[in-house]
Amino acid sequence: MGSFKGHALPGCFFLLAGIWWTGKYSVWHATRRNKSIGSTRLASRASQRRLEIFESSVMLFCAFVGMLAEQFAADGPKLQLYDFAEKHWDQLTNWQHATMYLFFGLAGTASLIIHITEAAPLALDRLMLAIAFFNEGFLFLYHLHGRSMLDVHVHQLLLYAIFGEALVAFLEVFHRGNIILELLRCTLTTLQGSWFWQIGYVLYPPRGPEWDLKDHNNMMFVTMCYSWHLAIAMLVVSVLYCTISCVVRSRLKRTPPMEMGLLKPREGDPESEDEVL
Amino acid sequence: MGSFKGHALPGCFFLLAGIWWTGKYSVWHATRRNKSIGSTRLASRASQRRLEIFESSVMLFCAFVGMLAEQFAADGPKLQLYDFAEKHWDQLTNWQHATMYLFFGLAGTASLIIHITEAAPLALDRLMLAIAFFNEGFLFLYHLHGRSMLDVHVHQLLLYAIFGEALVAFLEVFHRGNIILELLRCTLTTLQGSWFWQIGYVLYPPRGPEWDLKDHNNMMFVTMCYSWHLAIAMLVVSVLYCTISCVVRSRLKRTPPMEMGLLKPREGDPESEDEVL
Amino acid sequence: MGSFKGHALPGCFFLLAGIWWTGKYSVWHATRRNKSIGSTRLASRASQRRLEIFESSVMLFCAFVGMLAEQFAADGPKLQLYDFAEKHWDQLTNWQHATMYLFFGLAGTASLIIHITEAAPLALDRLMLAIAFFNEGFLFLYHLHGRSMLDVHVHQLLLYAIFGEALVAFLEVFHRGNIILELLRCTLTTLQGSWFWQIGYVLYPPRGPEWDLKDHNNMMFVTMCYSWHLAIAMLVVSVLYCTISCVVRSRLKRTPPMEMGLLKPREGDPESEDEVL
Amino acid sequence: MGSFKGHALPGCFFLLAGIWWTGKYSVWHATRRNKSIGSTRLASRASQRRLEIFESSVMLFCAFVGMLAEQFAADGPKLQLYDFAEKHWDQLTNWQHATMYLFFGLAGTASLIIHITEAAPLALDRLMLAIAFFNEGFLFLYHLHGRSMLDVHVHQLLLYAIFGEALVAFLEVFHRGNIILELLRCTLTTLQGSWFWQIGYVLYPPRGPEWDLKDHNNMMFVTMCYSWHLAIAMLVVSVLYCTISCVVRSRLKRTPPMEMGLLKPREGDPESEDEVL
Repeated sequence: MGSFKGHALPGCFFLLAGIWWTGKYSVWHATRRNKSIGSTRLASRASQRRLEIFESSVMLFCAFVGMLAEQFAADGPKLQLYDFAEKHWDQLTNWQHATMYLFFGLAGTASLIIHITEAAPLALDRLMLAIAFFNEGFLFLYHLHGRSMLDVHVHQLLLYAIFGEALVAFLEVFHRGNIILELLRCTLTTLQGSWFWQIGYVLYPPRGPEWDLKDHNNMMFVTMCYSWHLAIAMLVVSVLYCTISCVVRSRLKRTPPMEMGLLKPREGDPESEDEVL
Repeated sequence: MGSFKGHALPGCFFLLAGIWWTGKYSVWHATRRNKSIGSTRLASRASQRRLEIFESSVMLFCAFVGMLAEQFAADGPKLQLYDFAEKHWDQLTNWQHATMYLFFGLAGTASLIIHITEAAPLALDRLMLAIAFFNEGFLFLYHLHGRSMLDVHVHQLLLYAIFGEALVAFLEVFHRGNIILELLRCTLTTLQGSWFWQIGYVLYPPRGPEWDLKDHNNMMFVTMCYSWHLAIAMLVVSVLYCTISCVVRSRLKRTPPMEMGLLKPREGDPESEDEVL
Repeated sequence: MGSFKGHALPGCFFLLAGIWWTGKYSVWHATRRNKSIGSTRLASRASQRRLEIFESSVMLFCAFVGMLAEQFAADGPKLQLYDFAEKHWDQLTNWQHATMYLFFGLAGTASLIIHITEAAPLALDRLMLAIAFFNEGFLFLYHLHGRSMLDVHVHQLLLYAIFGEALVAFLEVFHRGNIILELLRCTLTTLQGSWFWQIGYVLYPPRGPEWDLKDHNNMMFVTMCYSWHLAIAMLVVSVLYCTISCVVRSRLKRTPPMEMGLLKPREGDPESEDEVL
Repeated sequence: MGSFKGHALPGCFFLLAGIWWTGKYSVWHATRRNKSIGSTRLASRASQRRLEIFESSVMLFCAFVGMLAEQFAADGPKLQLYDFAEKHWDQLTNWQHATMYLFFGLAGTASLIIHITEAAPLALDRLMLAIAFFNEGFLFLYHLHGRSMLDVHVHQLLLYAIFGEALVAFLEVFHRGNIILELLRCTLTTLQGSWFWQIGYVLYPPRGPEWDLKDHNNMMFVTMCYSWHLAIAMLVVSVLYCTISCVVRSRLKRTPPMEMGLLKPREGDPESEDEVL
């Protein structure tokens, strides 16, 4: 993956995932909040389940394609792990990336099984997601040995987003449907996506001069840059959330209002969904 | 910001914020606890909302002024990020401080939108505050490279307060209105404010001799000094809290008491507010 | 324990424990979920208690045998702690392993007392388990001084599983009967077991050439290998869980169904057991 | 405090505190559990409150005496902080110990005010305790510069108990009256007490030869020794708990039993107290 494209590709994936999740959770939350005003057509349990199954399938498919690409691309290891001729491990980096995809594939499979068969407890999909992100961070953590200072630094910054997501997904096991945690996860996914692009631009600038990977000022700039990416990710997620909320509300308001006077905040945790599926 | 004033200014801000918050939460908590005795005039939902909007506006305004000051002050970068002539980043420190202000501005904006429009879930303001503090700590963390021992140490001690506040604000997402957490946040804000003053005195003593920045005894003294600041912050917050509690109670007692016999601790989490807004 | 067998033995224990726990929790969870369909014969409170007492006894017995073996095996310290003749500590490694067994023995004893006498609160067995795992990790942590790079690394990876289990068991004190946490603990136990085998193969290969303990590529491969062990542990646990769920459901369905129409998800935490014992 | 007595004294305090707390919480828990069998004479709210006030007063008194002793003992600083003649800080170690006592004094004062006046929320006493322990650990953490390896190690091990207690006390803010957390805190307090004695024996052996502070084997032995102290602390706390439970139960059984048939586990968190005070 030592190339600009190798970082832009996962960047695109995570950006798309972040935006997709923001849309999904915004629609669901807006529909839940306006339940008493209009119909729940937009987010009936059956349609939610269909969406989850679709999402899991896409995730599984992408992970599978990713694994194949890492193995059988031009310079891939082609499933050979150990080069017995020269007595060294073969293409460990590709194998590591394939392992990362493998865990996202497992998370997709688990989610698929959960939403199709109801055999397993619902919260398992978040746990699998948490494990997938944790595994990604875990492999990155031991991936950085012997690289130059700035290279290590930009990847370490990435770990904040990755381990942050793992933690948030783990918290969601206990607070499922909490919109705050869901939006935080969306933000961190978007941040991870845009930061992959940034890593590509810093380490393999497609045009313009190379960056000095040992300059401390570059390191300080990159740190600040990470904050800006976070701010932009927050902005994107909130604009999307607000737009969708407004659209859903205005569409639902056109249906005749009923029992407006009975509007009452639900007891208990007011941000939690009521058993979505 | 390498000056006494540069540390005294944020110190004042955080001191004021800590005292303001202590006052606000004490009044609200005291009013809630004495609900059955007197009226809820002091903390009706409408007045609470107005207060929140006022607070958010002030926060947004200060953050905006702060950003402008960092950019357009005498030696500011004037929105120029890269000095193409000399090929280095321009005034990175000012840019970092502006970034910190930016996040507090975003937190203020989010809080404003939440309390004006009800478009977003209530707990979001605490999450944004947590992210703003986390970002402040994050930038400070990578701010310290190559400074002398005592300089690094006093800033590291600051991080305890900053990351502590981020954690407490994040916990408030789940335990909103828990007076213990609110007072803890007030204490840490006051501590942060007074510690900024202390940093100013240590690194840029306005009068008297310079401190030896490499003496280990100074470091040990400064560590202990931090404990004292914490103790004083705890004292200030508790005295304020007790005074306000007493005043509110005595004012409410003058109104005719009603249903005293029905006083009963609420079920569930007895420290939580009942949906303030 | 510096031998292949010395690592294979605990590996077997943890593998068996992981599989046993998976079976136990799967049966209980499946029976609870299908309560309204069939009888609760399979997991009545009395039989659950008998199972817990049996499990605790086995745990206590194994820990006791383990301690004796460490002390009185061929090159054991035979309860002598200090060699006064040569003025050095005697066989500290054996003593440390005996200490690890001691804590699992204590956990077993506590569990035994809790389930026989009801003298102590139920959640104590999870706390004792958490402490036993924490102690195991704690002793391993200070066990690694002065070893070669790969040796340290494979043991550090083990710590992820051990401290992870300690954390999960501690969380179970508050979320007892949460199937997600229980399966996570099973997975980590299985992972720990299979990783002990892997450590044995890496450090004391029973056949084939020695591993180069200083090669960085070996370290990267071993890290990835840990991910694979995790994936396999997850697979084993989920296959077991699904099989048992299906078997239990099909056996329970043969009994005449009753009150199917009244099936309703329980309120509150939907994954928690309802007071198993 | 560089002496055997200087470590034995706090050791005694913490040992006594650990045993006292174990007794207190065991009696309360046993009385609560047997509420329906006999009277609640042993743990009526009034007597519990009196006990808490007594405990807080003793804590405040000890902290005050401790501070005075550190200041005005033979070689104390006598309230002089800076030696202007020789231009260095005076007796920083004594000042640090006085600061530790100060925070326990503040915790005692807060607890006293809470239980006398009801002005402040109940959970504040646990928060103050958490802060007092955190402050103790915080000062120890920066206390260790430039000492020999074993000296640093034995104090680092102490930090596990101290920060562990701070964490448990903080958790009690949210789970007040959870007997598991209370007993864990008792265990850690006892551990801290006995480990202070061990530190005294290792660093300032009252008789016998000096320890080699640079020997790695000593370090490994000391680590294992810490586990044993933990095991002994767990044993002491559980024996005390069981004895007291049995005594309370047998004393309560002699009063005529009532509504035995109605014995039912309470809903919700079965380990939590029902608003003790």
